[in-house]
Amino acid sequence: MCMHFMSDNAASVHPNVWQAMLAADTPDAPYDGDALSAKLDEAFSDVFERPCWALWVASGTAANCLALATMVPPQGGVICHREAHIETSEGGAPGFYTHGAKLMLADGEGAKLTPAAIQDVIEPIKPGVHWVQPAAISITQATELGRVYTSAEVTEIGLLSRDRTMWLHMDGARFGNAVAFLRCTPAKLTCDAGVHALSFGFVKNGGLGAEAIVFFDEGLADIARYRRKRAGHLQSKGRFLAAQILALLDGKLWLENALAANEAAAIISQGAADRLLEPVEGNQLFLRMSAAERDVLRGRGFAFYDHGPDGARMVTAWDSRPEDCRAMAEAIAGL
Amino acid sequence: MCMHFMSDNAASVHPNVWQAMLAADTPDAPYDGDALSAKLDEAFSDVFERPCWALWVASGTAANCLALATMVPPQGGVICHREAHIETSEGGAPGFYTHGAKLMLADGEGAKLTPAAIQDVIEPIKPGVHWVQPAAISITQATELGRVYTSAEVTEIGLLSRDRTMWLHMDGARFGNAVAFLRCTPAKLTCDAGVHALSFGFVKNGGLGAEAIVFFDEGLADIARYRRKRAGHLQSKGRFLAAQILALLDGKLWLENALAANEAAAIISQGAADRLLEPVEGNQLFLRMSAAERDVLRGRGFAFYDHGPDGARMVTAWDSRPEDCRAMAEAIAGL
Amino acid sequence: MCMHFMSDNAASVHPNVWQAMLAADTPDAPYDGDALSAKLDEAFSDVFERPCWALWVASGTAANCLALATMVPPQGGVICHREAHIETSEGGAPGFYTHGAKLMLADGEGAKLTPAAIQDVIEPIKPGVHWVQPAAISITQATELGRVYTSAEVTEIGLLSRDRTMWLHMDGARFGNAVAFLRCTPAKLTCDAGVHALSFGFVKNGGLGAEAIVFFDEGLADIARYRRKRAGHLQSKGRFLAAQILALLDGKLWLENALAANEAAAIISQGAADRLLEPVEGNQLFLRMSAAERDVLRGRGFAFYDHGPDGARMVTAWDSRPEDCRAMAEAIAGL
Amino acid sequence: MCMHFMSDNAASVHPNVWQAMLAADTPDAPYDGDALSAKLDEAFSDVFERPCWALWVASGTAANCLALATMVPPQGGVICHREAHIETSEGGAPGFYTHGAKLMLADGEGAKLTPAAIQDVIEPIKPGVHWVQPAAISITQATELGRVYTSAEVTEIGLLSRDRTMWLHMDGARFGNAVAFLRCTPAKLTCDAGVHALSFGFVKNGGLGAEAIVFFDEGLADIARYRRKRAGHLQSKGRFLAAQILALLDGKLWLENALAANEAAAIISQGAADRLLEPVEGNQLFLRMSAAERDVLRGRGFAFYDHGPDGARMVTAWDSRPEDCRAMAEAIAGL
Repeated sequence: MCMHFMSDNAASVHPNVWQAMLAADTPDAPYDGDALSAKLDEAFSDVFERPCWALWVASGTAANCLALATMVPPQGGVICHREAHIETSEGGAPGFYTHGAKLMLADGEGAKLTPAAIQDVIEPIKPGVHWVQPAAISITQATELGRVYTSAEVTEIGLLSRDRTMWLHMDGARFGNAVAFLRCTPAKLTCDAGVHALSFGFVKNGGLGAEAIVFFDEGLADIARYRRKRAGHLQSKGRFLAAQILALLDGKLWLENALAANEAAAIISQGAADRLLEPVEGNQLFLRMSAAERDVLRGRGFAFYDHGPDGARMVTAWDSRPEDCRAMAEAIAGL
Repeated sequence: MCMHFMSDNAASVHPNVWQAMLAADTPDAPYDGDALSAKLDEAFSDVFERPCWALWVASGTAANCLALATMVPPQGGVICHREAHIETSEGGAPGFYTHGAKLMLADGEGAKLTPAAIQDVIEPIKPGVHWVQPAAISITQATELGRVYTSAEVTEIGLLSRDRTMWLHMDGARFGNAVAFLRCTPAKLTCDAGVHALSFGFVKNGGLGAEAIVFFDEGLADIARYRRKRAGHLQSKGRFLAAQILALLDGKLWLENALAANEAAAIISQGAADRLLEPVEGNQLFLRMSAAERDVLRGRGFAFYDHGPDGARMVTAWDSRPEDCRAMAEAIAGL
Repeated sequence: MCMHFMSDNAASVHPNVWQAMLAADTPDAPYDGDALSAKLDEAFSDVFERPCWALWVASGTAANCLALATMVPPQGGVICHREAHIETSEGGAPGFYTHGAKLMLADGEGAKLTPAAIQDVIEPIKPGVHWVQPAAISITQATELGRVYTSAEVTEIGLLSRDRTMWLHMDGARFGNAVAFLRCTPAKLTCDAGVHALSFGFVKNGGLGAEAIVFFDEGLADIARYRRKRAGHLQSKGRFLAAQILALLDGKLWLENALAANEAAAIISQGAADRLLEPVEGNQLFLRMSAAERDVLRGRGFAFYDHGPDGARMVTAWDSRPEDCRAMAEAIAGL
Repeated sequence: MCMHFMSDNAASVHPNVWQAMLAADTPDAPYDGDALSAKLDEAFSDVFERPCWALWVASGTAANCLALATMVPPQGGVICHREAHIETSEGGAPGFYTHGAKLMLADGEGAKLTPAAIQDVIEPIKPGVHWVQPAAISITQATELGRVYTSAEVTEIGLLSRDRTMWLHMDGARFGNAVAFLRCTPAKLTCDAGVHALSFGFVKNGGLGAEAIVFFDEGLADIARYRRKRAGHLQSKGRFLAAQILALLDGKLWLENALAANEAAAIISQGAADRLLEPVEGNQLFLRMSAAERDVLRGRGFAFYDHGPDGARMVTAWDSRPEDCRAMAEAIAGL
């Protein structure tokens, strides 16, 4: 049997999600005209303690790129980290959705942006038409290296974006894990901190095929609705996407799932304290590990990704079994 | 209780589809690296009796537009009917996916293209860079007015497309209904007739959120795979889309469902023979009907769309209940 | 020797334009940083009696499409006449510049739009994301069939565009000819009538390779400047484009040239009164003429285009020689 | 009086170019249907000693981006130097023309790419749809830092591009200066070395507003013709662009002009040998120079750009006067 720590993006679907989907299997209006889709805005407004506008889409790539496309004109730019998913792993989707806007890459420890790093990108850009002018900042929470922005850190970036008249987008594919780590309110990390649009990830956290784009600006949401249709992401049986999201919002199941995933990662990290390349702040572990050592683990039934020639990347999910995590921790400790 | 004949696009999901999805809820590789997605090419090759390459996507709009985007350069054109879904109802998605290629509109009875109608579009186009040159033809099977192209009719268009070095795409959102009506092999209507890519619809026919783009040309499929990712349509839990499609292909459930939908339409049409605006060749009915008459029907619990000021559009689905259809037929007959 | 009535788009360059270009051949700042480019806004503000913002570009296609691209989001539409140059003759350039926005075709006599014809396009468009929503209207002055909108006619369209919150663009490739025909102020036909951006044509009217996009809205101009660079239309020796335009504005040479072209057309029309397919309101003539008759004229040294199987299109220019026009008039009369 | 060493992009126009333009001022067919445009292919085939296909456009940005757009699919990438003009200075034009393809940045001394630097970009790119796959390489000759690729160096890159099935583009805004420096045949640096398309710059070298895209592959040229029109770059009086280019090709005037510009730079460099940040291989000089020193020079009437906080960039042109260059050399030596 394989103990799976490849990625949370292929984890199983939470029973409540299945139940909600099955319950949604009655005729209703197509697209987002159904009763469940109609509840989304209110449900997220509850989560974020202020009015917000939410759209379901099928993938994180679609969520990120639709959000950015509403914010950035084709001739503009998006400042993001060199390791950002939108830069490294989305097959050029931002270029497609934004009609050729430019990703402008910043550096920063743990794949985190800082105001200083953003300034380093902005400073050399001269005013005028020869140079692409940045129109938005995109940060990932938790980052691609498993790190979490504190509310204060997001707020600093939010202030900078406000001062520079740029929009602020948060790729929250693992937003739940970040909230679970910080144990603060979702609002503190987003709208209160100056974020205008959040890709709120559910697929990695118990969902099947539904993410939410949560807008804290109604004008952006209005544009996004048109662009979602234009991108073929307005599914006709949208009620099944709304059902997934509502099931995960209900009783904060999303947070419960994220806590479970983080806890699972914490268990593994106990056996790997001296190998950590990054602090474990969510459900991702980056470990120093030779190829030979990786072979040993894989030989024992553990599945995970390489992280460069001398590292390993392990990701836990809401359904990771504690006993598997303990076994992994022991196996690592015994290397 | 409402008897629902609005559109098949919001019909319920077939139990076999649910079963297959639930069965797919075990860890596997993400995206289309899973065991189920790997079976698609073979499964469709069986259906079409020749090698083909198939990609799942979440919507018919995505299927159509991805197919066209692989066929048509940005500076080219797509000949389609004035009533084609890609022209009338997809929010400009073809313009997005093809990067601005032009839809070139042809006329034709029943929303069907003919070689003559296509020639009428082509003829006035002068050679040279000032005029957009058509690179593909797109036909809808069954059409937006519920009509079906015979194999001979598709073949004629296929020959024209070959002679003019244009690709031929078929929007098969209701492909099953067309096959069910003609009772011919799927191949006869597609690859044998010169079709290069088919949007094979499942969502309207018992699926939840999965359509297939079936390519009869490997080069097109290779491009489409990149473009699917780039459009955010490569879902990470793609196994659930593959599961839906395989369940509907299994034992020709797709055909069985389509036959049931067509049969349901036939029942209604028995009460409406003198009102038919179009022959009923699938699961769509277009009836002459005054506003007052529509009110009567709606008052009796029937839901359906207007079709212009003096018409009604009714669509049956795999799950339409024969008793509801009989009730509708009687109600219409009694108007 | 050939007497040339093919198109004004290849006419000769006015001596004053040459002189101004030669005079501009001293070092200055590149792009639009030079002293001549800096004068454009003021020069056009004089012409239009109100503040306006003007950009030079090399072609009418670039002028039209840049203007539209600043007005219309990719998911939007542009209402134009079925015979509009942007629809028929620009090789899909609007699709490129607008990132796939849709041209929505209206009918109308003489290639002129009317409020009623525009309403006929708008009316069937339902609100909502499935249907492309129009964001601008584009009219051609003088039209592709040589007809001229009166100030009152433009104003009516301007009011409609205002009521519907759409921008109004005027393709003025032959704007001078329209002004010359109406003998009204340029403002009356544009900004006073609700036009937001004008492609002011100079190439057909004595220029070499410079058109102006005149914006009556500063925000649009600001966007257009970035998009011009992005389209490769910010030439480094832009001073030579500014020089051409200033030379043609100086002393209203553009109007003098247009009057000469119109007068030349009037001369020809005197021999062709019974053949006119359209009233002659500028410098274009559309005549009923059989293939055999066309052959006769061509045999006598006259060059012009066919206009369908039984017609001829003749265009005069600022440099058409009256004696050639009289010869043409006589030749036609003698057919 | 100002002694101008800002950029060659605003230099004066060569008398032969004026003469050719004035001579072209007779009626001819519009666009590229005229007699002069028809000569371009042959004229460049002579220069490159093999069949080639050439298109005029108005700017280097248009030349570069049209070339790349014919080579790279929207989902693909272009490998170029971090300092490449297409990356730093074209306002996002490559994103516009290629519909969002990705520029993939390589490092290298003197803004020159090497096979090793290109490999460093390629190596980490995994196969598969999640990662943008490079489809072309673009090099600048001479580079943005005034350096020149030898024929052997281009050939090495050409071989790599061939092995990896990538196209090779050369931005030759200062191609003449490179040929003048190396005193080799143009073919040796381009088609013989594996280059598929060259942006052959004339504007910086005595032209007014005409560059050539020279294709060594007919299929690419066929696509580019459509895309040129679509980008609004098919000027109606194209004969004046062809005239410029033919005048500069005639008797190798382009080479003569480039030699003059290089010689002018050599004169300046004689006074600045100990300040050179880059070897002077063409007509650009990059000098170590403090702000105070720059002020001194500017006080004496010399115009040039800063190059970072402690440097100066000076560019000579075909019309730089030797006495001005000597004065500059002396002034620098005397700092």
